[in-house]
Amino acid sequence: MASGGNEGDKAGKSAGARAVVRVGVLGAGNVGKALVSLLLEEAQSIERRSGVRLELVGVAVAHPSRPRPPIPAELLTGDAKSLVTDPSVDVVVELIGGLDPARSLLEAAIGAGKPVVTANKELIAVHGTALASLAASAGVDLLYEAAVAGAIPIIRPLRESLAGEKVQRVMGIVNGTTNFILTTMSEQGLSYTQALAEAQRLGLAERDPSADVDGYDAAAKAAILASLAFGCEVGPSDVAREGISSVDPVDVEFANRLGYVVKLLAVAERIDDGIGAGASADEDASEISVRVHPAMLPRTHPLASVRGAFNAVFVEGESAGQLMLYGRGAGGRPTASAVLGDVIDAAHHLVAGFSARPAPRTRVRLHPADDLRSAWYLNIDVADRPGVLASVASVFGEHAVSIRSMEQVGMGDEARLIFVTHVARQGDLMETLDGLGRLEVVDRIGGVLRIVGDEEA
Amino acid sequence: MASGGNEGDKAGKSAGARAVVRVGVLGAGNVGKALVSLLLEEAQSIERRSGVRLELVGVAVAHPSRPRPPIPAELLTGDAKSLVTDPSVDVVVELIGGLDPARSLLEAAIGAGKPVVTANKELIAVHGTALASLAASAGVDLLYEAAVAGAIPIIRPLRESLAGEKVQRVMGIVNGTTNFILTTMSEQGLSYTQALAEAQRLGLAERDPSADVDGYDAAAKAAILASLAFGCEVGPSDVAREGISSVDPVDVEFANRLGYVVKLLAVAERIDDGIGAGASADEDASEISVRVHPAMLPRTHPLASVRGAFNAVFVEGESAGQLMLYGRGAGGRPTASAVLGDVIDAAHHLVAGFSARPAPRTRVRLHPADDLRSAWYLNIDVADRPGVLASVASVFGEHAVSIRSMEQVGMGDEARLIFVTHVARQGDLMETLDGLGRLEVVDRIGGVLRIVGDEEA
Repeated sequence: MASGGNEGDKAGKSAGARAVVRVGVLGAGNVGKALVSLLLEEAQSIERRSGVRLELVGVAVAHPSRPRPPIPAELLTGDAKSLVTDPSVDVVVELIGGLDPARSLLEAAIGAGKPVVTANKELIAVHGTALASLAASAGVDLLYEAAVAGAIPIIRPLRESLAGEKVQRVMGIVNGTTNFILTTMSEQGLSYTQALAEAQRLGLAERDPSADVDGYDAAAKAAILASLAFGCEVGPSDVAREGISSVDPVDVEFANRLGYVVKLLAVAERIDDGIGAGASADEDASEISVRVHPAMLPRTHPLASVRGAFNAVFVEGESAGQLMLYGRGAGGRPTASAVLGDVIDAAHHLVAGFSARPAPRTRVRLHPADDLRSAWYLNIDVADRPGVLASVASVFGEHAVSIRSMEQVGMGDEARLIFVTHVARQGDLMETLDGLGRLEVVDRIGGVLRIVGDEEA
Repeated sequence: MASGGNEGDKAGKSAGARAVVRVGVLGAGNVGKALVSLLLEEAQSIERRSGVRLELVGVAVAHPSRPRPPIPAELLTGDAKSLVTDPSVDVVVELIGGLDPARSLLEAAIGAGKPVVTANKELIAVHGTALASLAASAGVDLLYEAAVAGAIPIIRPLRESLAGEKVQRVMGIVNGTTNFILTTMSEQGLSYTQALAEAQRLGLAERDPSADVDGYDAAAKAAILASLAFGCEVGPSDVAREGISSVDPVDVEFANRLGYVVKLLAVAERIDDGIGAGASADEDASEISVRVHPAMLPRTHPLASVRGAFNAVFVEGESAGQLMLYGRGAGGRPTASAVLGDVIDAAHHLVAGFSARPAPRTRVRLHPADDLRSAWYLNIDVADRPGVLASVASVFGEHAVSIRSMEQVGMGDEARLIFVTHVARQGDLMETLDGLGRLEVVDRIGGVLRIVGDEEA
């Protein structure tokens, strides 16, 4: 490998027999501080375990004169632009977050022939393909294990372990804030508002929680997972997105009673239209569906036991079968651990003059949402009088939505009808909801949730 | 990288612009056949996803004249020795199993400058360190993702994602046969013998089930996991091993009632003697405990929900926190999927002339089993008369084993006492058992099981 080799030689030579790789870090938030602690305190252990010595040469922050323990004051700099092109920096780690200036700094680092490591989900979701091409041309690594699901190894397994696998579906609980809120609603019977307040009190939710509760964070991660799993270019705007703010405690309770739990899922799925799982479908003809929405999962599903702020990603592959990767999806130290794994990988590659070629990516062909198929849970308040069920049921029938179970709960003048449907086309279900909304006897359509991972459905 | 580059150049050149890597396979059992199917049917998809074209050039079997669909007859050979040194083979995949001739064939392949991929847990557990040194000297890869827990990516995450992590404990359900037997005992109330017969009927257990039920298979995997997690050389003989044949349905039922499940665990643990988790312990001073034994796990533990033939590995790291990797631990296609991931990795490295350096390994310092600390479950039959509990309890007290809970179940003239202890030294618990055995009022000591993963314990 000629390209990128100049930095590689430098990294190798500066050490004599030992490989020393010098690291520049952008940003000193929770993750940045935790990474610096690891680099300073664990340098010897890292060297013994991995065979490379990592040296921290600088940390770029907005206000370098402000003390930021445990970062030694002399390593702080306000000049990020100079740090990324400094010849004494071998690997650049970006932990600023957001699109700018993170993007231009990484481009400058790559332009200077340096491998880059980032934990920035937003940047990778929006500009991942462009950055990957840039890195490939420069012959350097672009690594971002920490951008999805914190400490959980998911990017590397998808990119390497499953490189030979035809992945059918990736389904993840990738946002700890919403999982904490839904777990708290389910286990303590709180309302959404109460559970959110509790999450805010514990520092698990922002004062403005929209990025989490409206599914933006999960959508960025879904786009990254879909791109890797299916080798196509998926951006956040390709992700259909529903948040959890309308999840009602009544529906969480019915879910429990029916043997389900409510989770916010990021789903990336290959749809081989009209071709059975057994047939050898042409992957180029596959369409992809990428979405974030709350859903009911059977209590026996491996993802159902992922509680609180934990994350997990469930992968279904044609040969590998079902896999799940579980762990801490956020937090300074867990995220720093994943970043450090990438830094060591980049360092190994640098010393050996190797950089992984990114697989070519095709433009995504999105599957129309109306054609998605799923079982559904519906909670409908109706007038409690004879004949109502018949008129409600007939609306389902008109739209070819078949009812699997119905439970009626009396509430004085009203009755609450809890329906679970068989698998139905999303478009048909939406038309059913329209039709139900027009019925005079229907007072309110409450919770409407997909049921996922239930083989009986 | 000069060493190994000759094969790399060859692999690269034979393709012109495209990288073609030629694969030789040893063995055509379930995994071999599944791998050949994938290589033949999915060649185009693999090339599109990974950027390398894999070409199957030969499959070595004992009786090459016997037809073995889907393997084309012209690819079968009886001469494994020639296949591994054949200049038209770039990567060698060993799927024969056992120590010999697998070892000598891999040594010959490495000697000929070829990267090797194996799914052979026994070989890696016994000769892994020696083979890794040999591969490092030759500048080629030795990859064995499929040797532990089939399709589950565990070797690569331990080796790469967690390269910067101080791992405290690895705990796995790594044998599907025993997990099926224990799950069936727990959920259907069968005896060990009945559940084993059911596993044999379904083809999940061998006619001679000893390798599985006596824990040999799990011990080999525990040795591999410990070596990777702690960077030390651990062989199967370093693993303390108990099987599941003495697990009594009565104890499985009591476990359920107390909120636990019984699982066969492979445990590899770092013991920083006398140093709290917060202190920065010198890793060189750490002792390691590696063991396989049945244990009770709280029902809420992530490993508790791993049912039937599934496998999972739970990792606790100082920074990463708790991680779990879950999936199919056996079977032709899942295992072949992991092998294929390694083949693609080796192919990428070959094309780029890169080989990972194995981290240096120290000789393991084993922690004395008597000093291990754990909570325990004990099931003891005693004469049902006044004063018996006092004399039993005094034996616990003499050996500094503190009782957390006791339940008495009357059985006519006898009573069954179910004890759960607080955390106690294993040596003290063993002396307690000796003392109890000498009491005239104790008729029988039944189940004795460790309780693991219970923070209250």
